[in-house]
Formats: sequence, C-alpha cells, structure tokens
Amino acid sequence: MVKEMVLEDKERSIQAFNPVTNETLKQKFPVSSRTQLDETIFKADQAFQLYSKIPYASRADFLTQIGIEINNLGDELIKTCMNETGLPEARIIGERGRTVAQLNLFADLLRDGSWLNAKIDTSDPDRVPIPKPDIRQTQIPLGPVGVFEASNFPLAFSAAGGDTASALAAGCTVVAKSHSGHPGTSSLIAKAISKAIKVTEMPEGTFSLVHGPGIEVGMDMVNHPLIKAIGFTGSYSGGKTLFDAAADRPDPIPVFAEMGSVNPVFVLPEATKLGEEIAAKLVDSIVLGTGQFCTNPGMIIVQDSVDAVVFKNELRKRVGGVKESTMLSQRIKNSFEEGVARCSNAPGTKELGRGKGDGKNCQAVPVIFETSFKSFLENKELSEEVFGPSSLVVSTKEKREMIELAKELSGHLTVTVFGTKKDLSENADLLSILEKKTGRLILNGVPTGVEVCHAMVHGGPFPATTDARTSSVGTTAIYRFTRPICFQNFPNEILPEELKNENPLGIMRLLNGELTVNKWYE
Amino acid sequence: MVKEMVLEDKERSIQAFNPVTNETLKQKFPVSSRTQLDETIFKADQAFQLYSKIPYASRADFLTQIGIEINNLGDELIKTCMNETGLPEARIIGERGRTVAQLNLFADLLRDGSWLNAKIDTSDPDRVPIPKPDIRQTQIPLGPVGVFEASNFPLAFSAAGGDTASALAAGCTVVAKSHSGHPGTSSLIAKAISKAIKVTEMPEGTFSLVHGPGIEVGMDMVNHPLIKAIGFTGSYSGGKTLFDAAADRPDPIPVFAEMGSVNPVFVLPEATKLGEEIAAKLVDSIVLGTGQFCTNPGMIIVQDSVDAVVFKNELRKRVGGVKESTMLSQRIKNSFEEGVARCSNAPGTKELGRGKGDGKNCQAVPVIFETSFKSFLENKELSEEVFGPSSLVVSTKEKREMIELAKELSGHLTVTVFGTKKDLSENADLLSILEKKTGRLILNGVPTGVEVCHAMVHGGPFPATTDARTSSVGTTAIYRFTRPICFQNFPNEILPEELKNENPLGIMRLLNGELTVNKWYE
Repeated sequence: MVKEMVLEDKERSIQAFNPVTNETLKQKFPVSSRTQLDETIFKADQAFQLYSKIPYASRADFLTQIGIEINNLGDELIKTCMNETGLPEARIIGERGRTVAQLNLFADLLRDGSWLNAKIDTSDPDRVPIPKPDIRQTQIPLGPVGVFEASNFPLAFSAAGGDTASALAAGCTVVAKSHSGHPGTSSLIAKAISKAIKVTEMPEGTFSLVHGPGIEVGMDMVNHPLIKAIGFTGSYSGGKTLFDAAADRPDPIPVFAEMGSVNPVFVLPEATKLGEEIAAKLVDSIVLGTGQFCTNPGMIIVQDSVDAVVFKNELRKRVGGVKESTMLSQRIKNSFEEGVARCSNAPGTKELGRGKGDGKNCQAVPVIFETSFKSFLENKELSEEVFGPSSLVVSTKEKREMIELAKELSGHLTVTVFGTKKDLSENADLLSILEKKTGRLILNGVPTGVEVCHAMVHGGPFPATTDARTSSVGTTAIYRFTRPICFQNFPNEILPEELKNENPLGIMRLLNGELTVNKWYE
Repeated sequence: MVKEMVLEDKERSIQAFNPVTNETLKQKFPVSSRTQLDETIFKADQAFQLYSKIPYASRADFLTQIGIEINNLGDELIKTCMNETGLPEARIIGERGRTVAQLNLFADLLRDGSWLNAKIDTSDPDRVPIPKPDIRQTQIPLGPVGVFEASNFPLAFSAAGGDTASALAAGCTVVAKSHSGHPGTSSLIAKAISKAIKVTEMPEGTFSLVHGPGIEVGMDMVNHPLIKAIGFTGSYSGGKTLFDAAADRPDPIPVFAEMGSVNPVFVLPEATKLGEEIAAKLVDSIVLGTGQFCTNPGMIIVQDSVDAVVFKNELRKRVGGVKESTMLSQRIKNSFEEGVARCSNAPGTKELGRGKGDGKNCQAVPVIFETSFKSFLENKELSEEVFGPSSLVVSTKEKREMIELAKELSGHLTVTVFGTKKDLSENADLLSILEKKTGRLILNGVPTGVEVCHAMVHGGPFPATTDARTSSVGTTAIYRFTRPICFQNFPNEILPEELKNENPLGIMRLLNGELTVNKWYE
C-alpha cells in the first residue's frame, strides 16, 4: 500500500491557498522529515527489486488501474483541485482526461513491447580468428525515481503525471514530491495509486508521496544514494539546482528537468498578410490558462511592413479585449508582475497592448510588449521567460536581422513559424537554424497544446531542459528511466521474454541487423 | 581538408616513446595553442552547418571512404603504431580491421535508415474538443563533438575509432584530441580522414586532430561553447574531470566517458568442478594484450570447496607459465606496479601466482592475488581497478557472501558468471542483482573481446561510465550524439526524407502507433 507521509514533523506543515477566494485552506499536510524520507526511499528501493521483474502486461494493468482509480475519485478530485489552483472546472476535467490517457498510452506501449528495442546478434562459433558470441540487448529500469510535481499541471505533470507514468512503465518505482500549491490534489491521487497497487497486487512502496515546501526535502531526495534518476518540471532555478546537486553526487544521476522556455514565434513576410488571423490565434494562445503553460508564446518576431503594422494593431486590439484571470498562486502572480516590470523598464521597449482589469491579488492582466531588434539584443533581460499571459513582439527590419536573432536564441521547448509556401522556400536557412534551437518546430499553429503521442518531443536544448536527448511528454519519455543491457551467450530459457528465440511477445526485433517479427531458429 | 594542428607552439611539443626499445621517438607534434584550438572548433562548427544536412547515403560513403583510406596507409600505419605502442603487429592489423569494420557498420546503419526511429502521428482535424495536429519525430545531430583518444586502442578507440565513427554517422563534426602515447599514429589516421573528406567532398573542418599532453587542451575543448558533446575512453580521473567541467558549463553538455572497470567474474559451485578449463580461459583473458583492456577480468569470486582449491591451483599454475610482456608506456607500467603493491599490502591478501620475468622498464609480469570475502569488504582499495595483467580471487564461504558481495559492487562494464544449468537455476537471485550492476552480463565466457554489433552494450552504471543509458561500442553508440526533434504540421515537401508520406527511404516507421514500412496516404 502507498504510505503517504503523514507522520509528524511538529514544526512544519503545508497548507494550500485558494487564489480565487484568497484564502488559506484548512487541511494541513505534514512536511516529511529526513528520517521519513529515508524510510520512504528505502521502501521504494525494496519495492524496485520486485517491481522491476514484474511482467510488462501486469505493469500495464497497474497503469490502467491507476487511471480507473483516478476517475473513481470523482468530484472530490475536481473540487479539491479547483480550490487549490483556481483553475476552472472544464480545464481540470480536461487535464484529468489527459492524465488518464497518458497512463493508458504507456500501458499500451507495455502491452505492445516494441519499445524495448530488442536487438539480437546470434553467434557464429566458426568465425575466424575468434568465434562470434551471441549478444542480445534490451532495456532495463534504472531504479527508484524522484519526481517533482509541477505547479501549473496539478494532474498531468504531478503525482500521476507524465514523469510518474513513464517511470512506472519503465519498471522504476517512484517517490513523488508534491507541489506546495496543490498538496490535497496530490494526496487524493496518491490514494488512487495506492488503491491501484492493492487491486493489481503491486509491491508496497512502488509509489509514495512526500510533502516539502521549498528546496530542502527535494535536495535530500536528489542526494539520496538509492534514488537513481529525477524527473522535474518547473522553473530554471529549481531545475538547475537539482541538476547541479545530482552532478555533484559521488555517483552522478541523470536529472530530466523541463525548465520552460520563451517559445519564439516567427511570422514571415507573406504570412504577415494574414496578420489578423494569426494575431487572433496568438492572443488566444498567450492568454490560455492565464498564460501558465511551458509552451506559452512569449516572443513574436516580425519584419517591418504595412502588414506588420496591421498585425500588431490586431494583437493590441485582441489582447485589449481579454479580461484579467486568476493565476495559480500569489507567488506566481508576483513573479509575473516582476517579469512585466522588467519588460516595461527595458530601454526601447513599450507596451503594445493590455487587457482589462486592475490585477489585484492573484488576478493577472494580459499584456503584450514591443521592442526593436537592436533593443532586444542589447537588453538580455528581454530574453527571459515571463511566466504568465504576456508576450514580446520583436520588430526586425529585414531577413538578415531575423536570421541573426535566430542564431542568438538559446534552447526552447518550441519554435513556431508562420509562413506561406513561398515564405518557407525563401527561408529554408532560417528553418535550418531554428531546428537546432528546439525540440518541436511548429508551422502555422500555436505552441500551446502538447499532444500526448508517440512522435511528441517536449524537450529541447539547454536551458529548455537539462537533457535534450529525450522528451518529457509522449512515449519517448520512457527512455529517460531505462538503460540498455546486453546478455552474452545466455541460454534461451533464462533470457527475458523479448529476447527469447521464439519471440513470445511477437514484437519487432533487430535480428542480425534486420527488423523482423520472425523467430530465431538456431 | 582536415587541418591538423601543426602551427607552432614553440614551447611545447609531444614526442612518443617506444616501450619496447625504451627510446623517445624523434618526430615532434606541436601542442595546440588555445587560439589554434578556437580556430579548429570554429571551423568544426561552420562545417557542422553543412555536414549535418548532407544526405545519409553520402555520409555513409564518407565513412566507407575513411576505411578505404586507412587501409591505403598500408605498412606505414602498422609500423608507426608498433613503434609508438609496443603492441605486436598481428594485434595492430587486427585492430585496424576492427576500426574499418566499425566505420562500415555505421555506414550500413546510415544506408538502412531505420536507426532514425521515425515516428509519425497523423492529424485528425475533426477531433473534439481540439483538432489533432500532425507530429513527426526523427533524430538530429547535437553539434561539434570533442573526442578524446584512448591509450590502449590506438586505432579502434582513437582518431577514427568508435566515438568518431558514431559522431560522424550521427551528423556531427569531430575535433579529436590525440593521445600523447601515439600522436604519429593519429596523425596518419587524420591524413586518411582528410583524404576521405576530399574524395567524398565533405565540408572542410568536418574532422580535425589536435595535440595536447595532460588535461589542458582537453579542458579547453570541454569548456568551448561550440562543443556540444564529449566522447572519452580512459581513466576514472580523466573522465570524471571532464564530466565535472561539462556539468559546470553555463550550458552543460553530455560527456560520454567510458572509465573502465574491474569486470567481476563469479564462478558458481557446480561450474567450479570445471575449474581447470575455466582457469585456463581466465588466465588467457587476464594476460591478453598485457591486460590492457577495459574488460580485463580483475576480480574472480568463488565459493570455498575442494573444487575451488583445484581451480585456484590451476590459476597459479597457468599464470606461472606466462612471460612478462610490454605495456603501452612507462606511466601505465608505473601505475600497474602501484596497483600491484596496493594488493600486496592489503591486509589478508596474498599472492596466489606470478608469471615469469623481472619486470624491468615497460615489462609487466602477470600476477594473481587472493583474498577473503571479509578482507575484501574491509579494504576498499581492493575494489579499485588495476590496469594491467592482474586479477584478484575473492574466496567466499557460501552463497550468502556471494550475494552480499554482488550487492556491494559498483557499476562495471561487464559482469561474468560461470555456471551450469543447475547453478543458474539456483542463483537466479544473484543474476538479478548482477544485471543492475553492468552493461553486459556474460555466461561461461570471458569479458575481453567486445563484439562490434547492434546488440552490444559497452557501458554500464557509474563509475564504469558517466551515462549508463548508452553504449560506446556498436550501433547503439550513435544515439549519444543525436537528439529527437518533432515537426508539427509541416508540409510533406519540406519534411526530412525519413518523415515524408511516401517513405522514400523505405524504412520501418512507427505510423500511428504501428511499426510499418507502409506509406501514408492522406
């Protein structure tokens, strides 16, 4: 059974805050002490020895059951989550659907089995000068994984979110640290996982939830010798702190931190003629969920023209029609205000348009700024992410400046290009630069809305993430928590199922260099 | 054309040393200055912009041509390498064959195309509540890669070795730092690559060689902002220093350091009855190439029995019949002697057997030590790798001690088990522990001889490597230098070949969750 950390740490507890009513919620969630964390991680390691050996199909059933139990939480989950985050009901119901869909996607992946990338090179005892051995490769899990919940996705990137789903699918056990913004939501999810563990008879300790505000409990987790990998979604400072700590361990471990990005949008000259339509799409994307998405379009690059003037006017008009809305917490709102002030005060930068409202408490008024290419380059603070409903239009004089700006970009989760066929053929060089800067390159769409599927890459070069060679959304995410191993000259009967001669899983395998579902007859 | 760094750094140059004749060789190789290194890396980055876009088939031809040009170097390469390393002719000819085979394996991988793991999730504009976008994933190269040559494989893990072959295959350009033990060999290889670049019309700067003794030039390389990944084979201290520096960069980069290991060998009770045969195999493996392999079996664990006594006697007898042989350098020989002294002086440890010779200069006399389980646990220095022809037998009293020892192991490149069918069925728990400690688990064979194939994993948990999620040998190695990217809503005509609807490469792709070579008809 999942043991949520409810033992006493008399000094400290976490209480959530309702950003709509500006009230601190009553329920207290005790902060885990170091001893409690030790015990929890020790149990996760004990559970790992068993869980890592459980057949893939049973693991799949477990993931499916977690989804069922989450749905079984019914209204209590929705209401708790609304109270703790201020997010509207429809959004939370949608996010719950996404969370369950993620679990089911990984369950399907496990049932299919091809994800194991089984490779078999059979022996040749007669080879000269030395016989060729039989070598067979599969994927095995790394060990207990520490998962840090995100503030902005209380379900889809939290206790049973993408990190947990992919780690459990990989065969790892999970210790999740709740986000202090929604401990009650996470506790309910932990109960659902606990129920699923019971129903599907998984080892006790396969999943645990701990609570801790700030960095302390998290740092203890990263530094714990039995923790073998970290999944994190959040701020640059949070992710980088964990990355540095993990690299400094006597035995460094991988940290997969998704740290957000500015998500630049390039509007090419001919597409700018469709400026009104594009502006409408962009403003919708900028204010969606009060701008609290990692893929929020925080920078829009255009080339000066009559069309660009129309486009910018439309941005101004559109954002002017949007009312203030609630952010997740006072801390996030304060940070948004700081970012907005940073843009306001930057030389050569002015406000292009602003939404309605007075922005009291946790209410955020959307705002779009405008600056020149020159001011953008001269003021590094304009490159920083402002988490919330804001964006910055950078006006360039010509293609050369767009190219130069593209080259200056650091890593981003997404880069978007609006362009006609003609634009694209005239800007192949720009696209070629942009693909080096991101995990996802989007044409004529908006970056918000991260599809959960096989082909998705939600990642990208530093500082978007600490490891560009993977994704935190979609089935690619499973490989963060596995590693290849090969077995040399093993008798068929003790090989893992996916490597046996008769291919009992019926999966695609690389057999002596050829992808096939064929058996191997010795 | 490849520009080898031959500009003057009047103060410093590298000269190789012949460990057989104990003579410093005449030819001087100037150490690269920081300015020269900067220029070289800048060129590698310029070349990357072009090389990364060259069709896979052309990249394949380039790799094949490198192999041809290496063979064209003929006797000069073999003789230079013999002079610089003291390795026998047959070994160097064999290693050259392996090096060329590696290049050809990656060329075949590129021609095949399935390695790209192309994933396509097609759109559904009618999906509610929001339309499903078209998302397509492939692999792109990281950028210029710094490769550090290994001392013990002057060809297969050096200038045109596995790191370079996999990086070039991935679409990265390479700046290699020669090992000071064989700069002449590396210069010849660099010339061969230069010729191949000309013949196949690759961009200038696609490959460069720099020289530098010690850590300085290497650290400048790791810290250079245009270098995007590092491949390294060598010592723990060298690899860990590079890893730490890379993690401390403003933008951390991945370091794939293979840092050797002790490669424990477990001889299970029933197999011990075949002790004489196993002892013969193990001694051959221990002294192969004067023990200078990363996979040298440095620890042998047995359970006390009459058979174990026979087995140990046979080890003693066998190693006693082996003559001293030449190590790669005086430095390596000195380090071997230090390791031998460390074992000699460890409490409860004694010499089991020793080969013939007086071990002058670079000659190493093979030696096997013996210790008890208790002494092994109490003396941490016995767990350290002794690079050279030596091994340590650890005698355990019972299975429980073997299990405990297995649990104590850190990460190793290989773990070997000798066992009969009965042994294996009685020790499934031991095998389960051992697979968590290694990249390659071997049954009834020796760890030396790393097959270059698709299924090979030459890697493993820290401290065997700095990233267990990959391999430095075999085709898996290519993924060290690529990352996934996805294209959203791209028109078919500007997608990379591997993602186009009509599947022009004819490769296996994950199309809406199904592995198929089918085209996609919209």
